[in-house]
Amino acid sequence: MAYGLLNGKRGIISGALNEQSIAWKVALKAKEEGAIFTLTNAPIAMRMGEIKGLAEQCNAEVIAADATSTEDLEKLFTQSQDMLGGKIDFVLHSIGMSPNIRKGRAYTDLNYEWFKQSLDVSAMSLHKMLQVAYKQDAIAEWGSVVALTYMAAQRTFPFYTDMAEAKAMLESVARSFGYHYGKYRKVRVNTVSQSPTVTTAGSGIGGFDKFYNFADKIAPLGNASADQCADYCLTLFSDFTRMVTMQNLFHDGGFVSTGVSQEVMEGL
Amino acid sequence: MAYGLLNGKRGIISGALNEQSIAWKVALKAKEEGAIFTLTNAPIAMRMGEIKGLAEQCNAEVIAADATSTEDLEKLFTQSQDMLGGKIDFVLHSIGMSPNIRKGRAYTDLNYEWFKQSLDVSAMSLHKMLQVAYKQDAIAEWGSVVALTYMAAQRTFPFYTDMAEAKAMLESVARSFGYHYGKYRKVRVNTVSQSPTVTTAGSGIGGFDKFYNFADKIAPLGNASADQCADYCLTLFSDFTRMVTMQNLFHDGGFVSTGVSQEVMEGL
Amino acid sequence: MAYGLLNGKRGIISGALNEQSIAWKVALKAKEEGAIFTLTNAPIAMRMGEIKGLAEQCNAEVIAADATSTEDLEKLFTQSQDMLGGKIDFVLHSIGMSPNIRKGRAYTDLNYEWFKQSLDVSAMSLHKMLQVAYKQDAIAEWGSVVALTYMAAQRTFPFYTDMAEAKAMLESVARSFGYHYGKYRKVRVNTVSQSPTVTTAGSGIGGFDKFYNFADKIAPLGNASADQCADYCLTLFSDFTRMVTMQNLFHDGGFVSTGVSQEVMEGL
Amino acid sequence: MAYGLLNGKRGIISGALNEQSIAWKVALKAKEEGAIFTLTNAPIAMRMGEIKGLAEQCNAEVIAADATSTEDLEKLFTQSQDMLGGKIDFVLHSIGMSPNIRKGRAYTDLNYEWFKQSLDVSAMSLHKMLQVAYKQDAIAEWGSVVALTYMAAQRTFPFYTDMAEAKAMLESVARSFGYHYGKYRKVRVNTVSQSPTVTTAGSGIGGFDKFYNFADKIAPLGNASADQCADYCLTLFSDFTRMVTMQNLFHDGGFVSTGVSQEVMEGL
Repeated sequence: MAYGLLNGKRGIISGALNEQSIAWKVALKAKEEGAIFTLTNAPIAMRMGEIKGLAEQCNAEVIAADATSTEDLEKLFTQSQDMLGGKIDFVLHSIGMSPNIRKGRAYTDLNYEWFKQSLDVSAMSLHKMLQVAYKQDAIAEWGSVVALTYMAAQRTFPFYTDMAEAKAMLESVARSFGYHYGKYRKVRVNTVSQSPTVTTAGSGIGGFDKFYNFADKIAPLGNASADQCADYCLTLFSDFTRMVTMQNLFHDGGFVSTGVSQEVMEGL
Repeated sequence: MAYGLLNGKRGIISGALNEQSIAWKVALKAKEEGAIFTLTNAPIAMRMGEIKGLAEQCNAEVIAADATSTEDLEKLFTQSQDMLGGKIDFVLHSIGMSPNIRKGRAYTDLNYEWFKQSLDVSAMSLHKMLQVAYKQDAIAEWGSVVALTYMAAQRTFPFYTDMAEAKAMLESVARSFGYHYGKYRKVRVNTVSQSPTVTTAGSGIGGFDKFYNFADKIAPLGNASADQCADYCLTLFSDFTRMVTMQNLFHDGGFVSTGVSQEVMEGL
Repeated sequence: MAYGLLNGKRGIISGALNEQSIAWKVALKAKEEGAIFTLTNAPIAMRMGEIKGLAEQCNAEVIAADATSTEDLEKLFTQSQDMLGGKIDFVLHSIGMSPNIRKGRAYTDLNYEWFKQSLDVSAMSLHKMLQVAYKQDAIAEWGSVVALTYMAAQRTFPFYTDMAEAKAMLESVARSFGYHYGKYRKVRVNTVSQSPTVTTAGSGIGGFDKFYNFADKIAPLGNASADQCADYCLTLFSDFTRMVTMQNLFHDGGFVSTGVSQEVMEGL
Repeated sequence: MAYGLLNGKRGIISGALNEQSIAWKVALKAKEEGAIFTLTNAPIAMRMGEIKGLAEQCNAEVIAADATSTEDLEKLFTQSQDMLGGKIDFVLHSIGMSPNIRKGRAYTDLNYEWFKQSLDVSAMSLHKMLQVAYKQDAIAEWGSVVALTYMAAQRTFPFYTDMAEAKAMLESVARSFGYHYGKYRKVRVNTVSQSPTVTTAGSGIGGFDKFYNFADKIAPLGNASADQCADYCLTLFSDFTRMVTMQNLFHDGGFVSTGVSQEVMEGL
């Protein structure tokens, strides 16, 4: 069922790798709800991924951009505005990567060059997107920016290692830039803190399956799916949420507010 | 512009006193978005208020109910289901009152009988509504309950006196019952923490005007209006936010995340 | 090993029921660190408890006081000042009781008279103590008030039922009164959010043992003991923490900041 | 008045630049309370600063170390253990620097190389210290690590620019490493979030004076001084706080929990 919630809105959606990606779902649903948008991903992710199929379904152009490159991001915003015929109304930041996780380094034995890469790709990239957009005045008044994050920014999940710091920084960028972009163009910036999700990124983390089940048993509504996360993101892009900004919004079936569930206690 | 966001949904909306009330705006917009609902208020508030005019505009019935009376609430839920033809999909709790504030008692000189009334009317009433609904199994699967609150639950605003405790308790009820109702029927329960708003309730608080301006200068987007709050509530009643539960959601133009604004600093 | 940390300080310590009580440990250690103080408990708790033995060990007087009675609290502060020879430097509030828990009522089937009692005894009592002290100007400049609380004020633990609301309200009272007493006499008011602890109060809660073990496995340092909690309280009474106020301080071996532990994940 | 609170403890104190520094006060008080320790600072800071005078007063050695250099930190821990005759009981991290602030770059016009330096110096340095210590097993069981931070990690203060992200990351490192070091050696790791303080670092921030006054008017106890912050740090190094870990502890006279003060409202 479609409502036309994003009728007439122009967007940029990053991070759609394959059908499991939250960004992929956001794209499909944004299309359904009337938006037009460009898709973007890192050149390397595009080779591995299946983004072209998605682009066809959505009648969208794909713009390769390395989110750590200011130059690439400048092109992304310029070209998106050209292609879509005006300023941008919404942006999805769904970008994260940790070489330390990929290569199985423990948190007490991090490689610092990789740690810096984690921060650059997963957190500083949001600042770069926003700074580029700000300088180009590329986001329309009352526009909305959402970045996906995880609760490891507030609590320690041992398997998440240096992504905890990256997400803490990401959420801080959302707050800080939300202040400045709010003053400038009434643009809001928020993060959505999503349940563990069976995506390529999620599954790459050691111990993910066990944790997925634990979280599912703690959260009264169970883990939120990628589809449901996409639904939620749409409300944040819509005009119904114009005064929500600088927030970290938990979309996790109640996990964050549950100390322990009956089910987990009984299983002990 | 209407989207049909609440098409086919049945609701109960409490707390519409007059045109300034957030609940009043929620009713008008919920109607516009396709919902049917009953309106409710305390008998005494109904005499003072203009709820009948609203009811006519919305083609809704009004059910008088004292929110501290379990019996009244039982009738509210039974009759609402009868009138609307099925289980309830959404509930707005917009109920609060402090005799200590009304009568100008300082926080260091509270009357304890009045303090208990503040708690009973403003916070325990949410538990009573939910317990009645739970026992009647009156809320449909994936239903949504929203209660309006204020940031005094987290930080001290001297003029808000014992309502700080009432709101802290209200938010706790939302979390606790959200757990149980989530497990039982996938019903979500959240609070919306709204900017200071020019309503009858808000304006009754001493020093409100000065504080309204202060908050407006701190929040990068300014204070959120009652209309905007109603918009936000609708997203929480819609099917787009099914996995958001047990949350306190700030709808305040960024106030809560702003330490100080340039504007306030320069004015010092 | 004693340091004289509370040399010359006068205090009031509530809630010492028996050797397991946190308040009991606070009394013993406060004595050791040089403080003089009165002990207080509800008349009924005194009959059941063994507070007289403690009083002898500490060379302290016992003053029976129902913490819901303003009159009793007035006597408590007047007599304490008389007995101790001056204004009070520190107060421990360790008072809590839920008839709903005692009688095994589910959170979705609360008895509201009992709920009101839970609030009155466990939370409003702190306000009453502080209001009485404020009006008598009974607390010395730079005095310190600590109330014991539990994390159920932030997250749902199903077995804790209506004490969640009581603790949320207690913490709110600490913040609100902390503001006013800070301005008035530089008195600080804080809450200490302690691990599940094997006390008479703790053990009375159904499912306590299982939960105790769960918490012990999540917290990197394990659950904090009553003895350790007492140590921590002393720092908050000392002159080393004069500028800490209106805070809820977790004393829980890291539980609150741990999403999941390796140990719990492996046990699943 | 000295209590011997740190009798027999060995520590490392970083960041003492001159008499105004919090670290300087910590050193003087730690000495007074019976600790022995080494002092450390960046080579460049040492040339500018007056640390040698402090070292003499404290009978302490100074070890120059660039906190971004793993090699330097290895020497710091090895030499400190040698000089002090055993494992380290406490560490103070008081290190922060933002080239963007120094050179007056707006948050919407950050230089990214400088941003990376801010992160490296101000936040990653804590991880490096802890990873080095962990690998050397240099911190004694029940040791304590404290890092100084600022509330910009939670709320936006426009003048603080990219240090907001650095502090958010710093606090995340404290949580994450607190988990691992807690499991390993029962070492606790916390951050202290201090009032704006008149230090060389603080005063370097544009608009600092105005903000200092604003904060002083909001906080019921006023801004906490460097001296008082040092007192608080000592309690966290002492054996009285062994079970406090992975916490961000506000030491700010109540600022963080005050929405607005009467005084500020009246001044508007």
